[in-house]
Amino acid sequence: MKKYSFKNDYSEGCHPKILEMLSKTNYEQQQGYGDDIYCEKAIEILKEKIGNNDVDIHFVSGGTQANTIVITSVLKSFEAVISASTGHINVHECGAIEATGHKIILVPSKDGKVKPNDIIAEINKAEDHHMVRPAMVYISNATEVGTVYTKQELTELSVVCRKNKLYLFLDGARLGSAMSSAVNDLSLSDLSRLTDVFYIGGTKNGAIIGEAIVINNDNLKKDFNFHIKQRGALLSKGRLMGIQFLALFQDNLYFDLAQHANNMAKKIADSISKKSYTFLTNPVSNQIFPILPNTLIAQLEEKYEFYVWQKIDDVHSALRLVTSWATLEEKVDEFISDITSF
Amino acid sequence: MKKYSFKNDYSEGCHPKILEMLSKTNYEQQQGYGDDIYCEKAIEILKEKIGNNDVDIHFVSGGTQANTIVITSVLKSFEAVISASTGHINVHECGAIEATGHKIILVPSKDGKVKPNDIIAEINKAEDHHMVRPAMVYISNATEVGTVYTKQELTELSVVCRKNKLYLFLDGARLGSAMSSAVNDLSLSDLSRLTDVFYIGGTKNGAIIGEAIVINNDNLKKDFNFHIKQRGALLSKGRLMGIQFLALFQDNLYFDLAQHANNMAKKIADSISKKSYTFLTNPVSNQIFPILPNTLIAQLEEKYEFYVWQKIDDVHSALRLVTSWATLEEKVDEFISDITSF
Amino acid sequence: MKKYSFKNDYSEGCHPKILEMLSKTNYEQQQGYGDDIYCEKAIEILKEKIGNNDVDIHFVSGGTQANTIVITSVLKSFEAVISASTGHINVHECGAIEATGHKIILVPSKDGKVKPNDIIAEINKAEDHHMVRPAMVYISNATEVGTVYTKQELTELSVVCRKNKLYLFLDGARLGSAMSSAVNDLSLSDLSRLTDVFYIGGTKNGAIIGEAIVINNDNLKKDFNFHIKQRGALLSKGRLMGIQFLALFQDNLYFDLAQHANNMAKKIADSISKKSYTFLTNPVSNQIFPILPNTLIAQLEEKYEFYVWQKIDDVHSALRLVTSWATLEEKVDEFISDITSF
Amino acid sequence: MKKYSFKNDYSEGCHPKILEMLSKTNYEQQQGYGDDIYCEKAIEILKEKIGNNDVDIHFVSGGTQANTIVITSVLKSFEAVISASTGHINVHECGAIEATGHKIILVPSKDGKVKPNDIIAEINKAEDHHMVRPAMVYISNATEVGTVYTKQELTELSVVCRKNKLYLFLDGARLGSAMSSAVNDLSLSDLSRLTDVFYIGGTKNGAIIGEAIVINNDNLKKDFNFHIKQRGALLSKGRLMGIQFLALFQDNLYFDLAQHANNMAKKIADSISKKSYTFLTNPVSNQIFPILPNTLIAQLEEKYEFYVWQKIDDVHSALRLVTSWATLEEKVDEFISDITSF
Repeated sequence: MKKYSFKNDYSEGCHPKILEMLSKTNYEQQQGYGDDIYCEKAIEILKEKIGNNDVDIHFVSGGTQANTIVITSVLKSFEAVISASTGHINVHECGAIEATGHKIILVPSKDGKVKPNDIIAEINKAEDHHMVRPAMVYISNATEVGTVYTKQELTELSVVCRKNKLYLFLDGARLGSAMSSAVNDLSLSDLSRLTDVFYIGGTKNGAIIGEAIVINNDNLKKDFNFHIKQRGALLSKGRLMGIQFLALFQDNLYFDLAQHANNMAKKIADSISKKSYTFLTNPVSNQIFPILPNTLIAQLEEKYEFYVWQKIDDVHSALRLVTSWATLEEKVDEFISDITSF
Repeated sequence: MKKYSFKNDYSEGCHPKILEMLSKTNYEQQQGYGDDIYCEKAIEILKEKIGNNDVDIHFVSGGTQANTIVITSVLKSFEAVISASTGHINVHECGAIEATGHKIILVPSKDGKVKPNDIIAEINKAEDHHMVRPAMVYISNATEVGTVYTKQELTELSVVCRKNKLYLFLDGARLGSAMSSAVNDLSLSDLSRLTDVFYIGGTKNGAIIGEAIVINNDNLKKDFNFHIKQRGALLSKGRLMGIQFLALFQDNLYFDLAQHANNMAKKIADSISKKSYTFLTNPVSNQIFPILPNTLIAQLEEKYEFYVWQKIDDVHSALRLVTSWATLEEKVDEFISDITSF
Repeated sequence: MKKYSFKNDYSEGCHPKILEMLSKTNYEQQQGYGDDIYCEKAIEILKEKIGNNDVDIHFVSGGTQANTIVITSVLKSFEAVISASTGHINVHECGAIEATGHKIILVPSKDGKVKPNDIIAEINKAEDHHMVRPAMVYISNATEVGTVYTKQELTELSVVCRKNKLYLFLDGARLGSAMSSAVNDLSLSDLSRLTDVFYIGGTKNGAIIGEAIVINNDNLKKDFNFHIKQRGALLSKGRLMGIQFLALFQDNLYFDLAQHANNMAKKIADSISKKSYTFLTNPVSNQIFPILPNTLIAQLEEKYEFYVWQKIDDVHSALRLVTSWATLEEKVDEFISDITSF
Repeated sequence: MKKYSFKNDYSEGCHPKILEMLSKTNYEQQQGYGDDIYCEKAIEILKEKIGNNDVDIHFVSGGTQANTIVITSVLKSFEAVISASTGHINVHECGAIEATGHKIILVPSKDGKVKPNDIIAEINKAEDHHMVRPAMVYISNATEVGTVYTKQELTELSVVCRKNKLYLFLDGARLGSAMSSAVNDLSLSDLSRLTDVFYIGGTKNGAIIGEAIVINNDNLKKDFNFHIKQRGALLSKGRLMGIQFLALFQDNLYFDLAQHANNMAKKIADSISKKSYTFLTNPVSNQIFPILPNTLIAQLEEKYEFYVWQKIDDVHSALRLVTSWATLEEKVDEFISDITSF
């Protein structure tokens, strides 16, 4: 019997509406490199949803690409980006940012979030030309440990960044889940207003490939296409991106899918809470980190795939359980039942 | 009326068998990052077709990515790659190679090919540590001007490279068309034997996205995945790559599609020859470069899209006409008829 | 009245023997780029002092250059260097290492030293190609906070590095002072045996410019000159380097100068200890970090230049006082008297 | 008997006035990193000589450093610098420019100069974001083949650059010789007015190390120190630079030395012309390239060092003969006599 996977949110393909639309439009001749009508339409719709017609939108095929291109397009060679120590750019991108020449200044973080005071502390350290100059703050929403920024938190970050001439960049690889969280009070319009650039993650929420970079700050718009091309991210068949984001955003599909993922995670989290187990971080998105006895974990591993995230003590560990748009409720129920019965 | 496009070979989507296979497998849970069974199967089949079980195969989403990752994974910081001045890495990748720190040493070329003597001349120039050291030769097949390497030409390049400790890298963005050309006498097995690394282009021959990098030389295999990840080219849903290459190579589809593209180009080329027009380069693949009167070009531009490639004299220019797996024969016939009648 | 400076160890020019030798040899025609007889002789003498004829020695003009060239010459693009958070490459080189594409993995350190367990922890974290691979450990001796490695400490680092295939690189910008410390038990021969590469700092110990990089590990020797040239560090008049290191090492001048600097620092440290003040780190080299009342600091600032290093509490701060080969004993005595009387 | 060298202009040390001034100021305590009074004074005097108080001046230790720092400080990652194919940055800097991520666009040149039409041709080629964007033009004066720009030539380049928003950068490694040439009609003030940035070479004209970068365009001034530091070119004992340039420019020494070098070269050139030999390029600076019979060259090689630059035909080659501030007239006379008698 094959194990059911809660390992990540990219185990399945993509929402069937995307495949339908790909099939339906397949033989149309379209301009290459994102100049097709589907990219145009998708951008038009995204601008509406964001409520800001002045943003620039570009599609790339993955999160590391999005992060690298945004950051290297903004920073001068001696400038650095501030990130939580847990940040994806620091931990899981194989040094992609540094490979383009930039230092990541790390601030410690248990909940995956960057705090205004951490930013101020780093600004104060950077005295002169012997040190890199912090010029951007990178945050993820949802964070790599499943937490979600509130409007107040993001506003405070935005204020401290603008006051100190730092650009604020939000990595939205799991933005759908973040914005569908019970604790979320941010709209796409808020994101556009409070950040200088952010991206809307497709791959982890119903697309088969692709992220939509939204540039809010005029300073960052010029020549962005050169950076996309130079880093190998300009797809000749850009239609693949346009069609997917059109399918996801022409109605509410994107957020419906994220809501499903969150619901599935919440169902699991609630059942775990009921058993009086605790969590490494507050379970509010599609990634949850319950702390369970190693004996229980061993039993679950017989039937399910997931990451054992962190040792807690000699007999407990934290797991990472991830749900997605495609997670089957019957498997969630089975998992819950197993937790209860094991 | 919309113009019919001979502008490039990525105007349409992908072969319908790919969409079918994506649909059929869509809900299966698969491992991420290329560890799925479709990547596995595709690699197995490619190895069979190449006739060499010892090659390493990796999928990435575009040609610039493939070129950048291969070249930067091989060269030390002070080493350079030799390319024809017409090479894609020199002209149309927005400095992607230099962005990773490496010089491209250019050799002049009218037919898009690198010649053994050009390589030797550059080796002789590189005296000491004041100069970069040539360490790799980059060639494209088919070339950017539609020409195709013969087995003898590739063998001679291979010999001079091995003798002088240069790696030989073949960019196969249009490999299908090259290998389906009437003048081709190279097999995949020859490519694997004669080059150190090459790639099989999918995007321009039936796939919607993706290139398969084939590493023949053991020295180049180690840690290649780190380079893929660092340059943002490791897809979380790697299945998208595996499924496409499986669909293209489980039978002869890949070469059938290329043959169609070549047939369409040949049909146009033959009609142009009959009218006693000449070509910038020998028309042997899916890109042809007829030299036509500007008046005729103006008329054709009313109904068709294509690039005017180069001014020849005050009343003539060379066009680039490109056909693909999806080019409609009726449109080719119409184009031929228009050339004859205008 | 001009203030006397304890701000750093590069306030004065160079030892007069160097100027003499420069004058004496000034009109001799010599080969450029380090192929002169003075570089040759200096290298010969350094090899003797190191007790190892198989090392390669190269001169460059500064510490950031030495660090950048060594690190970038060794690491592959996806490899990282481990450093204490206090390391010069992390804090005070304006992102020079990252600018060549490499991540610095930071380990926290209060005494400026890297510990074997910190290295092992980082190795264990680096699971796969999603993360950079640690491949080198960078240490400074003396450290940036004035501490000095013992033979046992360096041996333990060496063992853990070799066991885990990490190169060990020692930044010796203040190596003279470290090796002239009362707590030192390392010889040049030990350094050559225990590290893969280190450098002997000239600029901060009697030279006007220049550091001597000593490569012990054969793997790191090949093509090193290419890296020196590419990073702009190959001096056309290399004789300037050779002559200085010849003057400093043809007898014991280098260590005599460092001993003077250390003696001056110790004199100050002893007087401070007598007054029952404490230190941020153990005062064992030419950089000492006494913790003094802010009122006393304000008085000292009237007559002397130095850095206020760190706030300790509301009424105390740690200073950095640096002595050098040229520090005047009468000024040291005056400073001591002022500390006592203020 | 040791051969006398006409191999380059860095065979000797430095002008004795520099050593005197180093000795005289040796024990003064000065601020580090270029904030000393000698750098200040030297900059003040250079500004006067340039006749422009608004320029920024920075000292670095070599030409490759100067070129790399200037170019990388100016260009965005997708921007390129145009250079003659003979340019030092292309041929003899081991890929230093590319190592910072930038393409050099080469224009062919026999006389070492860039022509306005070559620039326009490259601008016209750069259509869109698939190609690098030319953003700077690099020229050398004197060029690498000994030729010298006239005011008219430089004005024309300046006009075409400004019209097309390209920065103009003049590499003055041999600026002294260029400006002391009989064909020169450019003043330092002209250079400051016509270029955006240039540098005044010290190492090849009387200094032992050092070049003075002069930034004329306000856009290029900001944060330049960060670039100097990041590329390892910020000397802790910056006084070494200030003192040398003060010694060379407080009177007319710099140009007197260059005049001597040129006079010596002219004496040799005249004698060669008298013998009816020709030159590869017009002999107008301290580098001359006579075309001589190989038999004569072989005889000269017995007594003198120089580079055989280029094969001309089966029995003739072009030499490169270089004179300097330190070239002995008696040796020049001997060489002339040998040419005549051999």
